[in-house]
Parts: sequence; C-alpha cells; structure tokens
Amino acid sequence: MLKPKKKISSAVIHRLPKYYRHLGELVDSGIQRISSRDLSIRMRVTASQIRQDLNHFGGFGQQGYGYNVSSLYNEIGKILGLGNAHNIVVLGAGNLGQALAQYKSFKKRGFHIIGIFDVDKELEGRDAGPLKIQMIDELPHFIESNDVEIGALAIPKSEAKKMAQILVDNGVRQIWNFAHTDLHLGDDVTVENVNLTESLMTLSFRAALGQ
Amino acid sequence: MLKPKKKISSAVIHRLPKYYRHLGELVDSGIQRISSRDLSIRMRVTASQIRQDLNHFGGFGQQGYGYNVSSLYNEIGKILGLGNAHNIVVLGAGNLGQALAQYKSFKKRGFHIIGIFDVDKELEGRDAGPLKIQMIDELPHFIESNDVEIGALAIPKSEAKKMAQILVDNGVRQIWNFAHTDLHLGDDVTVENVNLTESLMTLSFRAALGQ
Repeated sequence: MLKPKKKISSAVIHRLPKYYRHLGELVDSGIQRISSRDLSIRMRVTASQIRQDLNHFGGFGQQGYGYNVSSLYNEIGKILGLGNAHNIVVLGAGNLGQALAQYKSFKKRGFHIIGIFDVDKELEGRDAGPLKIQMIDELPHFIESNDVEIGALAIPKSEAKKMAQILVDNGVRQIWNFAHTDLHLGDDVTVENVNLTESLMTLSFRAALGQ
Repeated sequence: MLKPKKKISSAVIHRLPKYYRHLGELVDSGIQRISSRDLSIRMRVTASQIRQDLNHFGGFGQQGYGYNVSSLYNEIGKILGLGNAHNIVVLGAGNLGQALAQYKSFKKRGFHIIGIFDVDKELEGRDAGPLKIQMIDELPHFIESNDVEIGALAIPKSEAKKMAQILVDNGVRQIWNFAHTDLHLGDDVTVENVNLTESLMTLSFRAALGQ
C-alpha cells in the first residue's frame, strides 16, 4: 500500500470508496482512460478536487492523457486494502443484525461476516442466513480462534459501550457502530458510526433547505 | 424554522443531527447551560467550529454565558423539522427493508414508516413488523392516499433507478437510497445515500491509516 505523506482528511477518506465504485463501473463498461474533468462530471465533484484527492497518494494522472482507468481502479483498491479478506462478527441478532449477516455485497469487497452473537437465549442456534446465532459468552473464544478484524454493533445504545469493550478486550480494533451513541475506545481503536436516524434527519433537513 | 442566509455546507448539515443528539443527552442529564468549549470536548470538534456552525442559523450563544441547553436543543429540533411527522415508504422487503420497517428509533424523531413494498408475489401480505408487505403496483395509489414524503430504497442497484422514478413520478421528493448507485433525479429531488459497503471500506481504510 502507498503510504500517504500526511494525515488524510475525513472527507477524502469518505470519497475514496466512491472513486473505487465509479472506476469499477468504468472498467465494466470497457472504458480505458478518463480525464479528471470527465471523472469529475461523473462523480459530481470538481476536477481540481479529484486531482487534489489523488495527489495524497502520489497522484496517478498524466498531463494530457488523464487517468488509466484500470490501473487507478487497482491502485485505489490496494489503498483501500481490498486485496485482503476482513472477518467480521455482528453483535446483535435483531432485524438489523440479521440483515447485515445476510447482506450479499460485502463479500465482493473482501468483507466476510463469520459470526453473529446475541444475549437472548431464545435466539441461540437459530439461523441468520448461513450462520447460526451464538451467545455472547462464546465471543471471546470465537475471536481467539478466528481472525476477527471488525466488530459490528447492531445493538441498543444502552449495551453498546459494554459490548464494544468486550470486542476491544479480546483484540478487535475496528468497530462498525450502528448504536446511537459515540464510542471512545482509545487511540488504537477505529470506530465508524452509521447512525440511521441521523441520516434520515439529514435527508429531511436538506430537503427543507432545498439542497 | 430559521432560514439560513447562505448555502449550508454538507459537513454542517451532517453535524446538526449530532448536535441535536448530544444536546438531548445533556437535557436528559439536567444540564442547563454549556460553554462552546465544553460542548466541543463532548462532541470532539473544535469550539470555533461549534460557534461557526451555529452562526449559520443566527447563533444562539451569549458571550460569557455559553449556550442554554434546552433552548438550543429546541431550536435545532425546529431547524431539523422535527416538530413535523414524516411518512416513509420502504421499497424492497428483503432483510434490510424489513429491518428498516421494524426499526424503533425513527418514530421518536417523527419518522413513520407506513408502508413496505416489493415485486416478489410470494411476499404479498406477509408481515414486516406491524406492516403487511404490498406489491409495487399498489404504490402509486398508496402514495396518493397517504402523505408520503420519503421513499427508502432497500433494493438492488439494478432496480434502483426505475423504482426511484416511480416514487418521483408520484410526487415523492426525498429518496433515502441504500442501493449502491448514485441517483440523479432532478434538482427538486433530495437523495441521501447510505452505502453500507462503502462504510465498511472506510472503516478498514481508516484503521490501516491509524486514524
């Protein structure tokens, strides 16, 4: 992976997967090269933004030629660590947890949900797609025996801190947090929040502003 | 609602629901006033960021006093349009659509999922939480008879454009898009994307960068 020279802004980090998706679509359409201008029209960001973003990683474009689509696609894939497999456990086997466990698109990008856990004894051993629901007390052993990188929290806010701590205490350093609370778990733990209620509020607010 | 003076940046729009959540927690703890410094520590943004953000809406703070928590909470609630009820239909009754239809936190913020639709005849009339799954051809009539503001797309990418167009043709102007594709539906339609695969990629990438 190309090591960036300085801290990358959150905005750039959030755009990279989007670059990757658009470039993947271009590869699928057989397009071999694209100018930053055309890519900018497609992605609805400015051409200078694209040049700036990609410069963080050494820049891939050539003056007068533009970008080679498939090599840019592959490079961004490498930057995103997509060559590697990432194992995930889901905590919480409610509707959302089960939906995550059965979501088909993750695997294509190397993200494998390999376990789903709950505290509710009634759910023990039930199917969640291809997985059997396990009890939380089996989690430490499961993490130890499998190479678990990511813990997804599909649980209520009141349980989130405790469950996240169990993950961290057992060596998981990446938390995908669907609970409606901010988690602060130390500098070596990365937390990515997905707050669906806030997303709806944002939609509604943008619509009211006409944006 | 306070009308802002100029176009609000996407970053500010995305922070407002977070202000609202933190202020709600402060209200619940009985805290009556807070300095921008203390709010900034709590929210992990800078104090000057907070002052700038809130200035978009006329500013609520008083020099030397800080912010009155409950009035700031109520004002931001008004800005976010949370006094009003917002009706939502979900398109797609797969795992994700069903999880959305049964998600409990939306209602507290005035978001009501009142219908769920699919194309699969096998699902017709089945329960999705408190709702019965309806067929897509019933959607236009349903939108007409109910005051539907928001359409949630919990469907594959290949169907997303067509389904979004049905919503728009029937007067829905807010699309909550879980399909992995950008939708461009005209200037009077607001689209908020939730791309779960990209969110996972972002988590993994941030962890690799140590951020």
